[in-house]
Amino acid sequence: MTQTSDWPRAELLSIGSELLAGETVDTNAAFLGAALARLGIPLLGARTLPDDRAAIASAFADARARSDLVVATGGLGPTHDDLTREGLADALGEELQSDPALEEQLRERFAASGFGSMQESNLRQALRAPSAQALANPIGSAPGWWVDRDGVVVVLMPGVPAEMRRMWEEQVVPRLGARFVLRPVHVRTVKTFGIGESAIVDKVGDLLTDPGDGVEAGIYAHDDGVHLRFSTRGEAAALDAPVSRALALLDEHVYGTDDDDLASLALAALGHAGVGSVASRETGTHGVLLAILAGTAPAPGSATYVGGLLDGGDAATPSADAVIHLALLPIDAHGRSRGRISVSGRISLPQVEVRVHGAGDQRQRRAAYAALDQVRRWCP
Amino acid sequence: MTQTSDWPRAELLSIGSELLAGETVDTNAAFLGAALARLGIPLLGARTLPDDRAAIASAFADARARSDLVVATGGLGPTHDDLTREGLADALGEELQSDPALEEQLRERFAASGFGSMQESNLRQALRAPSAQALANPIGSAPGWWVDRDGVVVVLMPGVPAEMRRMWEEQVVPRLGARFVLRPVHVRTVKTFGIGESAIVDKVGDLLTDPGDGVEAGIYAHDDGVHLRFSTRGEAAALDAPVSRALALLDEHVYGTDDDDLASLALAALGHAGVGSVASRETGTHGVLLAILAGTAPAPGSATYVGGLLDGGDAATPSADAVIHLALLPIDAHGRSRGRISVSGRISLPQVEVRVHGAGDQRQRRAAYAALDQVRRWCP
Repeated sequence: MTQTSDWPRAELLSIGSELLAGETVDTNAAFLGAALARLGIPLLGARTLPDDRAAIASAFADARARSDLVVATGGLGPTHDDLTREGLADALGEELQSDPALEEQLRERFAASGFGSMQESNLRQALRAPSAQALANPIGSAPGWWVDRDGVVVVLMPGVPAEMRRMWEEQVVPRLGARFVLRPVHVRTVKTFGIGESAIVDKVGDLLTDPGDGVEAGIYAHDDGVHLRFSTRGEAAALDAPVSRALALLDEHVYGTDDDDLASLALAALGHAGVGSVASRETGTHGVLLAILAGTAPAPGSATYVGGLLDGGDAATPSADAVIHLALLPIDAHGRSRGRISVSGRISLPQVEVRVHGAGDQRQRRAAYAALDQVRRWCP
Repeated sequence: MTQTSDWPRAELLSIGSELLAGETVDTNAAFLGAALARLGIPLLGARTLPDDRAAIASAFADARARSDLVVATGGLGPTHDDLTREGLADALGEELQSDPALEEQLRERFAASGFGSMQESNLRQALRAPSAQALANPIGSAPGWWVDRDGVVVVLMPGVPAEMRRMWEEQVVPRLGARFVLRPVHVRTVKTFGIGESAIVDKVGDLLTDPGDGVEAGIYAHDDGVHLRFSTRGEAAALDAPVSRALALLDEHVYGTDDDDLASLALAALGHAGVGSVASRETGTHGVLLAILAGTAPAPGSATYVGGLLDGGDAATPSADAVIHLALLPIDAHGRSRGRISVSGRISLPQVEVRVHGAGDQRQRRAAYAALDQVRRWCP
C-alpha cells in the first residue's frame, strides 16, 4: 500500500470541451463524488478540461504527483477530439498500441448489436497504454482503463452516464476495495421543510460546528428542504447523539431522515388514508409536480400515481381516487411567491396557501415539494 | 485593457463541499460556460473546490496568476462553511470589513420579505474586501462581488441558480462588456436523430476536422440526437458553407438547426395537421415524455399539451384531440431496447417500433425523444 494518509487522496478529472462550453451538464461528477464519499474517499478537488491533448496530459501529470487515486471520465469516444487515451499515455510516457483482444471485442459487439456495422473510427477505442488494464464496457463501445503505476491509480471511464455507472459498480469498486484500505464513511441525514438555512443554524446552536468527536456536520439547502448531514469514519453509533439532538431541536420542521423523500411520504400517507390511485392537476409549474411523482418508485401500501394535467386545460381530470391540485400564483407586488394546494376526490383537503421561496425553475420545484409536504402533513 | 490574447483568458471556480460530495449537481458551470462562450470568452478550465479557506485562497491565487477573468460561484451563504469571501480576501491580501450599506440592505430585505427576521449569521453576508464592488442580489440575501485589481477581474456570485443567473444577466454581463473587448462567437448547430456519432463522422468526411477558415467544429451526442456545432469569431457568413454541407451530407437524419427541438417540432407538426390538444400515455419511461412535453413552451399554431397518464394505469385517458402512446419494452434477449409508438384520437398514427440506444435513465429519455421524432416525421 502506498497511500500515506489515513485514506487515499483522490481527485476527479472531467474531460470534454462540451462540458466547458455548457453543452452538457456534468452529472457524472456528482455521482462519482457521492460514490467515493460512501467508500470513505472524499474528493479533494475536481477539474474540468477541454479536449486538448497537452492540457489533458498536464492535468494527469499534476494529479498523479498529488494524489493516490485519479478518476477521469470522458474523451474515450471514437472521434478525433476524444483525446483522453493520448493525454494519459503522454503523462505516463508510454506509447499507445492497438490491443488485438479489444479490437476483437469491438468487432463482435458491432456484429451482435444489430445496430449497424463498425466504423473505422471505432478502432481508436482498441488503443491501450501498455500499463493499462482494460475495463469492460458491456453497454457501450469505449472500454475503460485501470492504470496502477508508481503507487498511483488512474481510472478512465466513458462519459456516457449509464456506461460509466455500470463500469464503476462492476469493474472499479471491487478493484478499489482490493487496492486500498478503505474505511467506509457512515452518514445520517436529517431532512426539514419549510424552514430556512439561517433559521436552522440559529436553532441548532453548536450542533453544526461541534457535532461530537470524529463527527462532521454539514447543512445543505435543496429544493426539497434543508438537509443536515452528519458523517463519521468511526462507529455508526457516534451519529446517534447528533441526529437525536437535531430531531429534538428541529422537531415539527423535520419530515424524515436518510432516504426518506417527500413524494414517497405523501403517497404513503395517502395510501394509509385509503387512497388507491392519485392524479395531479397543476398550474404555473410546467409539470414539475407530475415529473416528481412520476419518478417516484411505487411502494406497497402507498397510493399509485396515475398521471396528471397541466395549466388548467379543459381536459377532464384523470379518474383517480384523489387529485392533488397545485397552483403557483404569480409573484405579488411585495415580491412574495405563493402556492395554492388542495386535494379532491374520495378524500379531500381544503385549500391551503403556502409561501414559496426561490426564483425561476427553483420556485416551481419548491412549490411542488410544498404541495407534497402539505399532503404528507395532512394525513400522517 | 490588460488582456494579452485576442480574448480574455477565463476560468471558473465552483465552490462547495456539497458539490465534491455529490450532494448537488453543478448546473451553474454549464450555464456559465455557455454564457461565456456566447460572449466570445471560452472557458480554459474549471475547478470545483471544498469549503476550505486555504484551498479557496490558493485556487484564487493560481487563477489570478493565469487568467484575465475568474468567475466563481458558491460559498457566499450565511453559514460557518461559506468561506469564499475569506478565501478571496486572503488571495488579495486584503481584510474583510463590514459594509454598512450592505448591512442596511440586508435588514431591509428581511423586514420587507415577510419571510421572518434576519438571523445574526446573515451579517457575514455584509462583509466585503475593500477592492470589491458589491453586486446586487434582488432575490436573495448574498450580494456578489466584482473585483478588478492588478489587471485581473474576479467575479463572485451566489450558488443558488436563480440568484446567480439574474446577477449574471443584470450585473455581470454589462460590466464584462465595458471592461473587455469582446468578439462575440457566432454558432450554428445542425441536429440529427436516429444516427450514431461514429456513423456521422464517417458520413461527413473532413467536415469536422476542416470546416473552413476560422471555423471550429464539434460533435456532441445528446439524448435528443447527435448535434454538429460550428462556430467562428469571424463573420457569421463563414458558417453558411459548413452548415449547408452538413445538411446535404446528413439529409434525412437532420431534424433542425440551432434552437429547434423535437418536442416543439412534434407539437407544431400536430398543430399543422389540425390537432388542437394533445395528451400522452406512456409505459416504462417514468413520465419522461410527459416531463419533456410539459416543459415545452406553447407556440402559436402548435398543439397544446394538456397532460398524460403513466404506466398503463386504468384511469381514463385525458380528453384531447390526440394522444401520443409510448411503451418502452424491456431489454430483449439480444440486449436490444425497443419502443412502441402510436398516436390515436381525431388523428391517428399506426404503431411503429423503434430501436432505442442507451441504458438507464438515458434509455427512457431517448425513447421519449424517439416518440417525438416519429410524430414529427409523420406529419411534417
